[in-house]
Amino acid sequence: MDERREQLIAVALELFSRRPPEEVSIDDIAAAAGASRPLVYHYFPGKQALYEESLRRAGRELAGRFEEPADGPLSERLYRVMGRYLDFVQSHGPGFAALLRGGSVAASAGTSAVIDEVRRAAHDQILSHLAVPSPSPGLRLTVRAWIANAEITSLEWLGERSVPLEELQLHLVQEFVAALTLTAAREPALAAELAGFFAAERPDGPTGRLVRELAALFADPGIAGAVAALVVKPVH
Amino acid sequence: MDERREQLIAVALELFSRRPPEEVSIDDIAAAAGASRPLVYHYFPGKQALYEESLRRAGRELAGRFEEPADGPLSERLYRVMGRYLDFVQSHGPGFAALLRGGSVAASAGTSAVIDEVRRAAHDQILSHLAVPSPSPGLRLTVRAWIANAEITSLEWLGERSVPLEELQLHLVQEFVAALTLTAAREPALAAELAGFFAAERPDGPTGRLVRELAALFADPGIAGAVAALVVKPVH
Repeated sequence: MDERREQLIAVALELFSRRPPEEVSIDDIAAAAGASRPLVYHYFPGKQALYEESLRRAGRELAGRFEEPADGPLSERLYRVMGRYLDFVQSHGPGFAALLRGGSVAASAGTSAVIDEVRRAAHDQILSHLAVPSPSPGLRLTVRAWIANAEITSLEWLGERSVPLEELQLHLVQEFVAALTLTAAREPALAAELAGFFAAERPDGPTGRLVRELAALFADPGIAGAVAALVVKPVH
Repeated sequence: MDERREQLIAVALELFSRRPPEEVSIDDIAAAAGASRPLVYHYFPGKQALYEESLRRAGRELAGRFEEPADGPLSERLYRVMGRYLDFVQSHGPGFAALLRGGSVAASAGTSAVIDEVRRAAHDQILSHLAVPSPSPGLRLTVRAWIANAEITSLEWLGERSVPLEELQLHLVQEFVAALTLTAAREPALAAELAGFFAAERPDGPTGRLVRELAALFADPGIAGAVAALVVKPVH
């Protein structure tokens, strides 16, 4: 491993995390690294190559943050992962936001490959924690759609910061629990898994809090009455 | 309006809907339009310009499909819109899938602007149907996240077609109802709106079917017991 090359990538990642690629020049990177312009070009053919290499580095770091021991209630594991994910979004997101939104001039086959790999790592981690023997296409789709939800929600949050980060972290986990429940409502094979999952949850955790919030909502007489009318199957 | 130009755009849209842009040449478009290569270049500087123009055309057509009279239960309106949306995905999606996934060589500031505009049209239509006096940032975020969910789910479906289209249509609507309910559980101001929304739903509609599916799921003794244990707030 060439240390000088590694240092250039680290410096580039730092700059590309804070500003969009069009606002970072090779001169900026050279200056921040205490290196000459020709030295940067000795290691990298140009800015795009350095951008892609630093994105790859960021992708590996992010995928590493998804790793979590298979201990304790599922929603609490996901809550911890989301804390690390949102911390990453805060520190690296501003520069990569345009890329993830699909509006970056630096988008390429190389950058899409990195993004796809991170999404796949997230998907595989979640399925490994769910530990469902053979995940159905419907369950896989639920997981992928929730990952897209987490991405878009955290990117929007980065622009507005309209709720505290801890709330976003909790809401994303609760949305996952809801999405999983909806999938189990459609797929009888998943219902038994869901029972095991709920049985391991704690009243203080994200799922416990969600259940009580929903119980309070459905205790509202207006909502309770309307929902009760829907529970009765229509006779044709 | 120049009819020849319009015809070239229509032919290009047809070709770009079926194949990725790198597999469509100016010669293909000229041949399909019964025009000469110089004639195409008379109207458009090159393939990218024609691609962007046909994408704009597709975007306008798609946004038009979101329009729906404000009559009847909300979930049934959304169900009709999703039927038209999924029909569009089937007919135009294959060619534009890479663009929406963010991995297209033809992505540009112009193409992102079109995609953003379609997403904004979807968001605005949904909010106008919800008719909530002043939508909170949380509600707006829920709507945007659900739109991302619909996009990713329909793109994945296009690749796999693992469930019938009508099921996908129903599930997407039901996921919207669930996301709205979760948002109302967090935002007391939205609970009254939700009561009115549920009161207008019909047992036969997407919401009625979802309510019965969930009632059946929570009647499972394992799930019912685990959930009941979570409803009791822990004492510290």
